[in-house]
Amino acid sequence: MNLKPSPFAPKCFPEMPQIDGIDFWVAETGAKYKNRPDILLAKFADGSAVAGVFTKSSAPGAPVEWSKTCLQQAACGGLLVNAGNANVFTGKKGHEDVCEMAKFAANVLGCFGEDVYICSTGVIGEPLDLGPIKTALQSNSLQNAQADWEQAAQAISTTDTYPKGAQAVAEIDGVPVQICGIVKGSGMIAPDMATMLGFVFTDANISQSVLQGLLSKLCETTFNAITVDSDTSTSDTVLLTATKAADHGEITNIEDPRLNSFRQALDHVMRDLSHQVIKDGEGAQKFIEIQVSGAVTDAAAKNIAMSIANSPLVKTAIAGEDANWGRIVMAVGKSGEKAERDKLAIRFGDYVLAYDGQRAADYDEALVSTYMKHSDIVIGVELGMGSGCFTVWTCDLTHGYIEINADYRS
Amino acid sequence: MNLKPSPFAPKCFPEMPQIDGIDFWVAETGAKYKNRPDILLAKFADGSAVAGVFTKSSAPGAPVEWSKTCLQQAACGGLLVNAGNANVFTGKKGHEDVCEMAKFAANVLGCFGEDVYICSTGVIGEPLDLGPIKTALQSNSLQNAQADWEQAAQAISTTDTYPKGAQAVAEIDGVPVQICGIVKGSGMIAPDMATMLGFVFTDANISQSVLQGLLSKLCETTFNAITVDSDTSTSDTVLLTATKAADHGEITNIEDPRLNSFRQALDHVMRDLSHQVIKDGEGAQKFIEIQVSGAVTDAAAKNIAMSIANSPLVKTAIAGEDANWGRIVMAVGKSGEKAERDKLAIRFGDYVLAYDGQRAADYDEALVSTYMKHSDIVIGVELGMGSGCFTVWTCDLTHGYIEINADYRS
Repeated sequence: MNLKPSPFAPKCFPEMPQIDGIDFWVAETGAKYKNRPDILLAKFADGSAVAGVFTKSSAPGAPVEWSKTCLQQAACGGLLVNAGNANVFTGKKGHEDVCEMAKFAANVLGCFGEDVYICSTGVIGEPLDLGPIKTALQSNSLQNAQADWEQAAQAISTTDTYPKGAQAVAEIDGVPVQICGIVKGSGMIAPDMATMLGFVFTDANISQSVLQGLLSKLCETTFNAITVDSDTSTSDTVLLTATKAADHGEITNIEDPRLNSFRQALDHVMRDLSHQVIKDGEGAQKFIEIQVSGAVTDAAAKNIAMSIANSPLVKTAIAGEDANWGRIVMAVGKSGEKAERDKLAIRFGDYVLAYDGQRAADYDEALVSTYMKHSDIVIGVELGMGSGCFTVWTCDLTHGYIEINADYRS
Repeated sequence: MNLKPSPFAPKCFPEMPQIDGIDFWVAETGAKYKNRPDILLAKFADGSAVAGVFTKSSAPGAPVEWSKTCLQQAACGGLLVNAGNANVFTGKKGHEDVCEMAKFAANVLGCFGEDVYICSTGVIGEPLDLGPIKTALQSNSLQNAQADWEQAAQAISTTDTYPKGAQAVAEIDGVPVQICGIVKGSGMIAPDMATMLGFVFTDANISQSVLQGLLSKLCETTFNAITVDSDTSTSDTVLLTATKAADHGEITNIEDPRLNSFRQALDHVMRDLSHQVIKDGEGAQKFIEIQVSGAVTDAAAKNIAMSIANSPLVKTAIAGEDANWGRIVMAVGKSGEKAERDKLAIRFGDYVLAYDGQRAADYDEALVSTYMKHSDIVIGVELGMGSGCFTVWTCDLTHGYIEINADYRS
């Protein structure tokens, strides 16, 4: 199917520097997609550290199980991704296929199969056809030409309408370090995880345990704070690889103040990538930020924010550019979290629509209607119960979502 | 807006007998809808018993709070319903308006305001205009002509595309007793409650506590086992009124075996009404039954069934007549309930698609595709973990849902 590009698609892919110690190749199997790469192979420099966060689904795909084991065993050889078939619910053959993929990749990379992370995205339940993947990995075209970030981002896409990348520079001990990432998403996006596949790379010299701590924590407010449709993929994986090529002393303590700039830059990259997933949400026409404050706890604030973000009635109202704040009240009420109607205040952008248990006296529907025509909408909910707060991001629910998803397998 | 009738709309409203001790009147305020009644007034015979179940929203409407108090005080004078404005999040005025509505109704019915249940459905957050309601209640046309079941069902509708009623006859001590009900629903339908407004009436002579026990229990597997869009209304109310006009000894014990026929008949009526809500779900083209078995507990089975029923990806796949069972695996996985991929079996109708952690060896996509063209779809999920089971009902997610809900207030 041909997808219309998201209205949020950037004019061009960002300029992103090479990361010392990371090499990419892409290839085309032709299995599901035509005229685009669908295989990404990455080689990590010897001694790289890798951190990972995976889907919490109780029916994860064989590649997720494989990559979890890789992570436990501190594997750091490289990464193979295929797009088009998720290799999920494919029984014993699914596991065997992952092992084979790792072997093929290891052959090219010159390492052991156990050192190669495997990620697959696409249709669930269909047996993988290994032949075209193997052929693609053995082709000369793959082995002769290294790929750039944009090609890498294209190779991991499924229903994405544009390739997604983000970068930032940090400083550790006066040495500039690079952080670059790519991501693919668009439907079946919800915590936990939100992103189907995200890969972030840095040349910083940071130990695995510190990397893992940073990734896990920042995921909570980035990749796990977005939702397109409340559905959680069986394949979601985010990996953060540090090649340690940068010329500074290794950081081994997450409290080390030398990490401050890096932490900020990594947060920036992860936030940027996660927002790009929402901006390319299936059928998305609006980018919606939901800020909940005054909840009993941060966790309660997150539940309320997600209840709003996942409400089909809220999402369709915003698609219709309708400031239907009554549906926000409904979504707060159904969240199961403590709320008191008469303490609740709701605003769209800077316009307060409701407080003290009723519509704001100076509510001007014409002004708010103009605001609702913007492509970026902020919804603020103040509960007046405590100091818990959380922000999540979502998109509207449009005809485009139905079109894409009622016809995905055909 | 003009709504296309649901493809499940029956040719005509069912034949339903009058219930001895229940009188209806309907009226047109013209406030939101034209050429249709939007006010229902019901008088209950002296000595009637009333049971009720309400939304669990933490931001319920003023009418829900009022009616909960009525129930606590064993009120049994009658019922006033208005459609078009839910009188929710309307502050102190909302409460005052409910009191006024009860007073107006009591004037017509010849009882006290405290004896009249009030239910409102429609837009949230807009102050109620009491004038047209008062005028309608005082009009001669209202007071001179009693309404039938179909008119009563029409009067409580909002985005419903057909009036919904169901009836059954039971026997207590050899005496036939009638059970008749009406319901309105269609969006913002999810447990708990599923129905926005449902009213069931019987002439049986059953005590209030037994009625309440029956209603609460049967709601779990009927009105609370359906979902259109996972959104929970702030106004949901189901009332069951027994006028006690039937000529048999009062039943005061819920274990009384003389209740068996009545319980069955009430279950039939409540199930029929709840299914009609789904069949008129906003944009519904398919009626979907999700049977989950083999879960650790019934509650786990319900969570899994609801996770499937509320998944936008499952609902859009069925809209596209696509047997995308991979999305069922995804929804089981995201439910948070215990499941083991390799014990899971999935069927659509009688066609087993997957078991033993992979696609069924004899899976014939052509046969299943033909099945997916049916208007009624059964999805079976066997978890192989225990004996917990539960069935829920939902509809597909189509362009019609988006059309209705992106444009509801205009």
